[in-house]
Amino acid sequence: MHDAVEVIAAKRDRLELSDSQIDWVIDAYTRGGVADEQMSALLMAILLNGMGRREVSRWTGAMIASGERMDFSGLSRPTADKHSTGGVGDKITLPLAPLVAACGVAVPQLSGRGLGHTGGTLDKLESIPGWRAGLSNQEMLAQLESVGAVICAAGDGLAPADKKLYALRDVTGTVEAIPLIASSIMSKKIAEGTGALVLDVKVGTGAFMKDLDAARELAETMVALGQDAGVRTVALLTDMTTPLGYTAGNGIEVAESVEVLAGGGPADVVELTLALAREMLTGAGRGDVDPADKLADGTAMDTWRQMIRAQGGDPDAPLPTARETHTVTAPATGTLTRLDAMAVGLAAWRLGAGRARKEDPVQAGAGVTWHARPGDPITTGQPLFTLHTDDPDRIDRAQTSLDHGYDIAPTDTPYQPTPLIHDRIG
Amino acid sequence: MHDAVEVIAAKRDRLELSDSQIDWVIDAYTRGGVADEQMSALLMAILLNGMGRREVSRWTGAMIASGERMDFSGLSRPTADKHSTGGVGDKITLPLAPLVAACGVAVPQLSGRGLGHTGGTLDKLESIPGWRAGLSNQEMLAQLESVGAVICAAGDGLAPADKKLYALRDVTGTVEAIPLIASSIMSKKIAEGTGALVLDVKVGTGAFMKDLDAARELAETMVALGQDAGVRTVALLTDMTTPLGYTAGNGIEVAESVEVLAGGGPADVVELTLALAREMLTGAGRGDVDPADKLADGTAMDTWRQMIRAQGGDPDAPLPTARETHTVTAPATGTLTRLDAMAVGLAAWRLGAGRARKEDPVQAGAGVTWHARPGDPITTGQPLFTLHTDDPDRIDRAQTSLDHGYDIAPTDTPYQPTPLIHDRIG
Repeated sequence: MHDAVEVIAAKRDRLELSDSQIDWVIDAYTRGGVADEQMSALLMAILLNGMGRREVSRWTGAMIASGERMDFSGLSRPTADKHSTGGVGDKITLPLAPLVAACGVAVPQLSGRGLGHTGGTLDKLESIPGWRAGLSNQEMLAQLESVGAVICAAGDGLAPADKKLYALRDVTGTVEAIPLIASSIMSKKIAEGTGALVLDVKVGTGAFMKDLDAARELAETMVALGQDAGVRTVALLTDMTTPLGYTAGNGIEVAESVEVLAGGGPADVVELTLALAREMLTGAGRGDVDPADKLADGTAMDTWRQMIRAQGGDPDAPLPTARETHTVTAPATGTLTRLDAMAVGLAAWRLGAGRARKEDPVQAGAGVTWHARPGDPITTGQPLFTLHTDDPDRIDRAQTSLDHGYDIAPTDTPYQPTPLIHDRIG
Repeated sequence: MHDAVEVIAAKRDRLELSDSQIDWVIDAYTRGGVADEQMSALLMAILLNGMGRREVSRWTGAMIASGERMDFSGLSRPTADKHSTGGVGDKITLPLAPLVAACGVAVPQLSGRGLGHTGGTLDKLESIPGWRAGLSNQEMLAQLESVGAVICAAGDGLAPADKKLYALRDVTGTVEAIPLIASSIMSKKIAEGTGALVLDVKVGTGAFMKDLDAARELAETMVALGQDAGVRTVALLTDMTTPLGYTAGNGIEVAESVEVLAGGGPADVVELTLALAREMLTGAGRGDVDPADKLADGTAMDTWRQMIRAQGGDPDAPLPTARETHTVTAPATGTLTRLDAMAVGLAAWRLGAGRARKEDPVQAGAGVTWHARPGDPITTGQPLFTLHTDDPDRIDRAQTSLDHGYDIAPTDTPYQPTPLIHDRIG
């Protein structure tokens, strides 16, 4: 009916792809009838010539149709999920999922492992002794009914076309295309079957999207895709020039998340967790519940403990710590005016918190703790960073990354904080 | 030193590729270190974002460096070659090579087989009983010295990177990029070692380039590449809205070429043969010789006969004829105002003169003869086309292609002929 060169040539020549061309090419690629070298040429043409709303929507639908769809309509409560485009110190899923569940909305959170300078939610949770990421669909459904929250690995059955496409994009310079990023994220989230979805689109040095316009375009594209598929979708554009909280790593981020669930924790992590929770609750029709109450009264913490236990983890076990720590002290007195998310993320990654290749292990105890945030006063010699790693050889390179990652200005320099939440789309 | 994603991303982001990036990517691709799916993404980025003169020149040089270079500097006479971008009824190489050789300039013509609606020079010559296209480099050199003209198959040793790239472009919608077309043609011609080169860049319905601007850009790019490599290069932009001569096929085009060598033949074929011959002679420093004399005095024909015999062919053997012929008569009286090269080429191809896949055979006797050219008066019922094929089942589809391939206007309609040679570049 179609052939690969015809579809490639259409997009190359700036034509819109028809529904039938899109359905055909995704299906044929998934089955092996369109070769990798044909798909990568098409992906580059899409990257450079774009896709319109109908095309992206159909492309996403075709990726969903390549695999199974989950169905939570039989649950006794509504569902809502959150997706973050990835940032440094972004542990928000950990307090957020049990918090929203404590408010009466089920959270089926399918997560991934980290690659590069941003950590993965599963890597963080795997630092909890006993906890396992792999659940069958049946176990997932049962846990959603009993606990209300699940954070687990996405099975291979959801959007297999996306899995194959993502691996291809990674080696062909075609990751950076908004229609492809949007359809990759949304195909999995729509196939997952959530009723409501909140997107946390990060923008800034430590994010995939470095500028607000591109982040806004990505957010708008994804919100449109969700709406086209009948999922109540909103997006928050949030800052990622500064890392979230005071920790970037695995076990150390779990510890910080538990502080939030205990009613404390860093102000920015609490603020973003509550903002996302309110959006999820509103999307799920439970906008009447105030999530702040559930942090305060301990029910979010109770749900966290149940969620960890249900997946084999021991919420009371001590978290693993790194064999070595190294403190970096402040070289000057003044005000911290910049703490660069990318520099911190890179340092954490170099210390062993992240992986360079998919098959690499991560260190549960590795990462970076910072002791001040932009706007804070600094005194010469005070601890600025603590570096955690099992492997002291890694400290030098991590420290190099941090060296240019912060600024200390004279005490009387006016400091204008960046807002944490830039905008809301949807 | 480099990696594929870096090179792809540079061209994707509209940067110029460095010499070292180009050398690396062509070498690594030829050796298998850059995968097909990476190269096709790069090719699409080049197609859409272009390459500057330095980049195309370096790209061409890297393809030449991937294989062997021939050297004709030891010959007793200068060398000149011609390349046509392909047209319908384009048998010009057949009379041209012996004609130029008869004028004292050696012609090392490496040719190809046809694919699609334009015929291949080797396919045409192979209709001569006994003639063989495959020569060793040594045989080629010896024949250039003794006869002065060789038309043979290009060996696998010249620009192997181009061979691999061409096969990839064919299945990835990346054929239609001027820098890639130009570098593909010129890498082989420069590696072939000719001293002078004349390019016949066809433009019109039956050509690869449908419009004059694109054809001019291709011609200018190729002339620049030739000059950068020290080959005296010019290009003629010639018409391919009307097919050349009165025949499109294999054996029937050889017969028409022999008519030209005998001092007769169609006016347009003679005109183009002489124009190209004059350019080749000028490029080789023999602009003082008039090739028309060598057609008139029979020396071009003598050289043709020697050239055919040297490659095992019998110039006196009857040419193969098709088992079936079918005549299409004129449905009206008037003036033939249009004879479409693409329609004729497609008909010849459908009759068996060309191949759909590289491994298909061609019919030596198949093709189309037309009995009038644009501007000629037509009378209802006169023969307009003769279709030749071994397989009568093919006649219907060939005739369908011709049905809309010509116009007969009332006798008093003014007819403005298209010039055969549009322009000269170089």
